[in-house]
Amino acid sequence: MSGLSIHAVDVADGRPAEGLAVTIRRLGREPAPVADGLLGPSGMLDHPITRRTLEAGAYEVRLAVGQWLGPGRAGILDEIVFVLRVADPTQHYHLPFKFTPWGYSVFRGS
Amino acid sequence: MSGLSIHAVDVADGRPAEGLAVTIRRLGREPAPVADGLLGPSGMLDHPITRRTLEAGAYEVRLAVGQWLGPGRAGILDEIVFVLRVADPTQHYHLPFKFTPWGYSVFRGS
Amino acid sequence: MSGLSIHAVDVADGRPAEGLAVTIRRLGREPAPVADGLLGPSGMLDHPITRRTLEAGAYEVRLAVGQWLGPGRAGILDEIVFVLRVADPTQHYHLPFKFTPWGYSVFRGS
Amino acid sequence: MSGLSIHAVDVADGRPAEGLAVTIRRLGREPAPVADGLLGPSGMLDHPITRRTLEAGAYEVRLAVGQWLGPGRAGILDEIVFVLRVADPTQHYHLPFKFTPWGYSVFRGS
Repeated sequence: MSGLSIHAVDVADGRPAEGLAVTIRRLGREPAPVADGLLGPSGMLDHPITRRTLEAGAYEVRLAVGQWLGPGRAGILDEIVFVLRVADPTQHYHLPFKFTPWGYSVFRGS
Repeated sequence: MSGLSIHAVDVADGRPAEGLAVTIRRLGREPAPVADGLLGPSGMLDHPITRRTLEAGAYEVRLAVGQWLGPGRAGILDEIVFVLRVADPTQHYHLPFKFTPWGYSVFRGS
Repeated sequence: MSGLSIHAVDVADGRPAEGLAVTIRRLGREPAPVADGLLGPSGMLDHPITRRTLEAGAYEVRLAVGQWLGPGRAGILDEIVFVLRVADPTQHYHLPFKFTPWGYSVFRGS
Repeated sequence: MSGLSIHAVDVADGRPAEGLAVTIRRLGREPAPVADGLLGPSGMLDHPITRRTLEAGAYEVRLAVGQWLGPGRAGILDEIVFVLRVADPTQHYHLPFKFTPWGYSVFRGS
């Protein structure tokens, strides 16, 4: 049940953000890549990190929202950059992002 | 995959709202009870409605947040009352509530 | 500085909800109308209640979002119904609603 | 009316984030400092940038939430990093952050 899962929904249009590019890095003296990929049809990232025990520490999750929305829907949000502190690696961390071109909401789910 | 699911997390404390009382009614000339119960350990409502095809129409979801928080954590939020319009009963409607004593966020998930 | 102020922004489109209809009632044995009107150009309700000391108690704020969005932008949200508990009438209560056709966020501002 | 204003409220506790450290940089080939300071009693940043015309481009707003909350209230959120795209410098950009130790919500206000 440990690991980190990402979910993103375009709540302006009411649909999962299929194809949205995600990059996850572990922060530290030398930031290290952890995962990258495109969200699947349900807006979830399908990647081993969702089931793998993390190390404690800080992680940076980037979502290329502006690129995904395209120029026709440009607002103030080009990229979501979320810095996550993992204190207890035995827990699962679920991050449900709800975004529009004008902002977003994210509160740890369960 | 049709049905209506409810999830609630206390995002002041960072934990699922286990035990939170939920009532769902179908609105209309004569409002009709649809479901009621307490959220389970993961903050989800475990009820047949989550897997049953709904009729199109308007539904009212009530969450007794003030009662669940208790007097020691009183804020401005006594009860969440969410009115949901179901246009296409073949779809699934997932409502993820993120609340604190001072307000909440809910955007349809997937 | 006491009173109740309402602000609403359509965060799918990134603009204040000018013209959105608001109704405020005091709840109780016999619910009593407190204020109604349309939001102004900045998305604020311009009404004496924003500057008037309230009585302690529960208030219901309704925003006719579905009507304002129109049929071309129908989602799950027909009406926002927010129940506010006013514990200390000497304070000001500011409610900033951020909505899309698919949900909303509201946390007491200041 | 142009400029960039920052407002932050701790919506777990229901109070403005007085004293929260904010840093704003202009992004680009060579990121340039734009503003820094502590939020005032109402949770607003009092700085000339709130009234000054910005250049078009991308800005990074950082809020040192973890430091402000202190170790007794540690959650997943150590720092808010918001990347803002300013397309039209004649407009005003208002960013109202609502946070808890477990996440946040920000949608452009007005």
